[in-house]
Amino acid sequence: MPGTPPTRFVYLGPEGTFTEAALRTLPAAERGMRTPARSVPEALEAVRSGDADAALVPLENSVGGAIPVTLDELATGSPLVITREVVIPVEFRLAARELIPLARIRTVAAHPQASAQCRNWLLAHLPDATVVDVLSNAAAAIAAAAGEYDAALCAPIGVPRNRLTVLADKVADHADAVTRFALLTRPGPVGEPTGDDVTSLAVSIRHDQVGALLAVLTELSVRGINLSRIESRPTGEQLGTYVFFLDCTGHVAETRMGEALQGLRRICAEVRFLGSYPRHRLTREDPVPSPPGLSDSDFADSAAWLSRLRAGEIH
Amino acid sequence: MPGTPPTRFVYLGPEGTFTEAALRTLPAAERGMRTPARSVPEALEAVRSGDADAALVPLENSVGGAIPVTLDELATGSPLVITREVVIPVEFRLAARELIPLARIRTVAAHPQASAQCRNWLLAHLPDATVVDVLSNAAAAIAAAAGEYDAALCAPIGVPRNRLTVLADKVADHADAVTRFALLTRPGPVGEPTGDDVTSLAVSIRHDQVGALLAVLTELSVRGINLSRIESRPTGEQLGTYVFFLDCTGHVAETRMGEALQGLRRICAEVRFLGSYPRHRLTREDPVPSPPGLSDSDFADSAAWLSRLRAGEIH
Amino acid sequence: MPGTPPTRFVYLGPEGTFTEAALRTLPAAERGMRTPARSVPEALEAVRSGDADAALVPLENSVGGAIPVTLDELATGSPLVITREVVIPVEFRLAARELIPLARIRTVAAHPQASAQCRNWLLAHLPDATVVDVLSNAAAAIAAAAGEYDAALCAPIGVPRNRLTVLADKVADHADAVTRFALLTRPGPVGEPTGDDVTSLAVSIRHDQVGALLAVLTELSVRGINLSRIESRPTGEQLGTYVFFLDCTGHVAETRMGEALQGLRRICAEVRFLGSYPRHRLTREDPVPSPPGLSDSDFADSAAWLSRLRAGEIH
Amino acid sequence: MPGTPPTRFVYLGPEGTFTEAALRTLPAAERGMRTPARSVPEALEAVRSGDADAALVPLENSVGGAIPVTLDELATGSPLVITREVVIPVEFRLAARELIPLARIRTVAAHPQASAQCRNWLLAHLPDATVVDVLSNAAAAIAAAAGEYDAALCAPIGVPRNRLTVLADKVADHADAVTRFALLTRPGPVGEPTGDDVTSLAVSIRHDQVGALLAVLTELSVRGINLSRIESRPTGEQLGTYVFFLDCTGHVAETRMGEALQGLRRICAEVRFLGSYPRHRLTREDPVPSPPGLSDSDFADSAAWLSRLRAGEIH
Repeated sequence: MPGTPPTRFVYLGPEGTFTEAALRTLPAAERGMRTPARSVPEALEAVRSGDADAALVPLENSVGGAIPVTLDELATGSPLVITREVVIPVEFRLAARELIPLARIRTVAAHPQASAQCRNWLLAHLPDATVVDVLSNAAAAIAAAAGEYDAALCAPIGVPRNRLTVLADKVADHADAVTRFALLTRPGPVGEPTGDDVTSLAVSIRHDQVGALLAVLTELSVRGINLSRIESRPTGEQLGTYVFFLDCTGHVAETRMGEALQGLRRICAEVRFLGSYPRHRLTREDPVPSPPGLSDSDFADSAAWLSRLRAGEIH
Repeated sequence: MPGTPPTRFVYLGPEGTFTEAALRTLPAAERGMRTPARSVPEALEAVRSGDADAALVPLENSVGGAIPVTLDELATGSPLVITREVVIPVEFRLAARELIPLARIRTVAAHPQASAQCRNWLLAHLPDATVVDVLSNAAAAIAAAAGEYDAALCAPIGVPRNRLTVLADKVADHADAVTRFALLTRPGPVGEPTGDDVTSLAVSIRHDQVGALLAVLTELSVRGINLSRIESRPTGEQLGTYVFFLDCTGHVAETRMGEALQGLRRICAEVRFLGSYPRHRLTREDPVPSPPGLSDSDFADSAAWLSRLRAGEIH
Repeated sequence: MPGTPPTRFVYLGPEGTFTEAALRTLPAAERGMRTPARSVPEALEAVRSGDADAALVPLENSVGGAIPVTLDELATGSPLVITREVVIPVEFRLAARELIPLARIRTVAAHPQASAQCRNWLLAHLPDATVVDVLSNAAAAIAAAAGEYDAALCAPIGVPRNRLTVLADKVADHADAVTRFALLTRPGPVGEPTGDDVTSLAVSIRHDQVGALLAVLTELSVRGINLSRIESRPTGEQLGTYVFFLDCTGHVAETRMGEALQGLRRICAEVRFLGSYPRHRLTREDPVPSPPGLSDSDFADSAAWLSRLRAGEIH
Repeated sequence: MPGTPPTRFVYLGPEGTFTEAALRTLPAAERGMRTPARSVPEALEAVRSGDADAALVPLENSVGGAIPVTLDELATGSPLVITREVVIPVEFRLAARELIPLARIRTVAAHPQASAQCRNWLLAHLPDATVVDVLSNAAAAIAAAAGEYDAALCAPIGVPRNRLTVLADKVADHADAVTRFALLTRPGPVGEPTGDDVTSLAVSIRHDQVGALLAVLTELSVRGINLSRIESRPTGEQLGTYVFFLDCTGHVAETRMGEALQGLRRICAEVRFLGSYPRHRLTREDPVPSPPGLSDSDFADSAAWLSRLRAGEIH
């Protein structure tokens, strides 16, 4: 039912990954039902079909970049919208069945994204170990617990689950690495603006056209809309044909965002609205005020002025 | 009374100039009362004070350019709007009290704008004559009729008025020279769009800022608004501070023009609306259709889409 | 001979106007020969034909705006360039044959630009006097001296010339009104940059094209070139066809100006270079430094980098 | 030795993938030495260290998008440049140890990118089979040959290598799917322009700035440079900080590209040149000519004009 807070949550599994940890930062999810899905498409399908109210899936990682499958799923199929974002620090743990010196480790199980984010750490601390690719962070922990490998690079949540012992904490090449997740629901009434919001869009653009992308950015910049993210994904049709994923500063209920969206709608092959939701900040930051002339009241003033012009009431 | 057609007309005099000829192309003026004014400010003052319903004054000439006093008057004082434009060909006549050979002409009276527009003709046909500046085309004819000068360069309408004889017809360096006049009234309900309209604006801009002018043009170009004219006039405050007079293609009642006007209102120090009115074309021309995505129905479609987004009704 | 300082000066006459006063602020002119011309075209013709080395003519007035005839002359005919600008305050004097109370003045002779710049002063101090248009400030003084009118509005220089008595000093509606003059010569080697220079251009643009003007401004803004002035003049061919006169901040010898000029040359129907010369400032102002990345050394750095790229020397 | 054609090639292995097939389309590679690498970083390291002359690695896939690791490797470390691109159609084969009916297949081994590109085909033809992720297309074929799974989705080259039997040919959801590979070498003299070239760049831009990206695109569009691809990758420092990978139409030896590169160099935090090389087209297409005013000869003309201006030779 539109407007009802979600109670049945699905998330990209397996259990014991960063996604489950991210989901549990939401009080409603902590209270509600949480079901792991085997893949992002499966998670979203559960929401689309009504089997779940909301799905938490990864959107991007500050080191590894966008999660392509999430973007591709959002750009196609029946519409889903982001109602919340969750940003959590990415800190891996090196864990094993028992406490052993690093020098004795010969094999480390790791998801390729995890080993990529820890490459320098691994070179420095485990120069002689072989890193073996596995299919998830949770799978790494399970395989180490089963004794298939000497150690695992895994999420903190995976350590107690598999009764592992931590050999190294906060393993990461980039101390500030974070992953950003999106909580997706079926479309419904959009939440109120908070003054520090994000509006996400998927915009289709013709290829070979610097002008087309310039036009998109100009529609935004004329209304003082900033971008906090731009990602391109191929449409699958041919090289050079893209969908752009834009994270814009502002909320669909704000006039300037509304006007910019209308502008994009008019000039682009397709614009898919992916939600307006509060920005999740790890540190307190003052929201940027509207540029001069671009607040809702500036728009209201100019609309009133235009009405007077049209009525011939110019004083 | 707003909406009542004007019956009392004032125009830049004296009688016998191109302005009177232009005014008489309007049926309502041909039927109504026509009073010459000694200057553009005097003509506009008559309308502002309610002594006249409408004033016809020159706006620009295709050879001599803008009429500065008209622009300056429109940019200041209580608002007036253009409700009609009249474009007429500028053809001077060389006239004298009686038929004399050109070779015998020693002095020619002419308004400086007239002699400027006929300079090459005068060099070719009257190489030895002295051109004497006088203060209007009508004054030239009067002075020639009084015998002060051998001949006058004047408007066709001045010849019979002063019982002069035409020595040369269609005198002009540029065969297609035209003058454009504006019919000004106090603000009232704006006429309906005709599909081929002009919207005139006076826009104040900070000096020393290529960026400020770029921003103004971008507000127009994003909405597919073209310019048929741009003139700058100093504000009188210091060098480099301008009011820009813009003639835009389109009508204030059209959505894209409305949105562009609101954009200008928000970014400019001041925007003065000078009217939306049918373009006067001397030759039949097909109006340019709206660029793709910028018709009123495109705007209506995008506004409806935005409403659906805001209501959470995305399908 | 190119490079030789001018010694024979011509200026827009008659004697006793602001132009003569402006010319005499130049030491070389004070020492050299100074000849009045009857018109701007006559003054420029003297330089073009070699009868004079340099001509001083008015370019614009902070109240009255551009001097159209000067712009039109610069845009056509054989090329001339501005080598100096002179900016002087415009202060009129009200003068008469003898000291009389203002209340007794019935007629005032004035050039129309002069009475326009003093309109409010005249309304306040001489509400009952009739202002009579004459053809120059000097003519006003001469006519008052001859007793044709009770008083004259004239330039300070006209008072002693005609043995008039000053009735009011510093007559002006705008206390800071200035007129800007250009010293024009035949093209020759351009002076060195001073760090606070102006480059003047006449640029031809297609009509009905907001895009064409946007393109011109973009060529400038991409290279961080600012405009201190933009004026449009009709080309005389048809309404809506313009030459734009641009005063740009910077000097043709600077790399970024050179690149911008090349860009304009490539995209415009015609670009006429009207000179690079030191900005004349009435008050001391610090010149604006190059924006980041746009100094000559930034250009030199990027050119060297490009050379290395092309040679395959990337380190 | 710079300029010597490469003879020692490395490619992303294992043997039997599309990358090996792509490499063998190059005659020099067919004649030379070809060594598989275990990863993109390992392949590039071999070139950087001098153990190999050139590395072929995948850049992007028309369905799956960019290959993140390739972009990240190109943006960091000692510079490498692209000297050739190879585009090949992506057609998977479904293969098994022996000819069996599709209905009997219970498990299919596939690399996740392969199963993603064939998802609809798999749903339609193998609705009941479980797709098992493996770490490469070659690994899929090997595992099927070993009997671990009933069938494999693999590259054509993997079928004979593992003595498999083809169950289905040209398996793909998008009939026109292609993968684009880059041949990377250490920097050296750049090849001659062919008239249909690509220039690849990695450009660092500040986050949260629609203006910064607009500025980059404007530097290109002012010089008529088009984009055939734009990809963003995080820098790893924080969310919202990107490197943009741009594929531009044109060659570094062309003047307009040179000027655009200099412009980017001046305004961007960092610009890394990744090579100018002939565009590989699967179908014959006429190259797009330079836009008006932007050919090398237009630039040469405008440069000559500027030299004349600076020398004072304006005629």
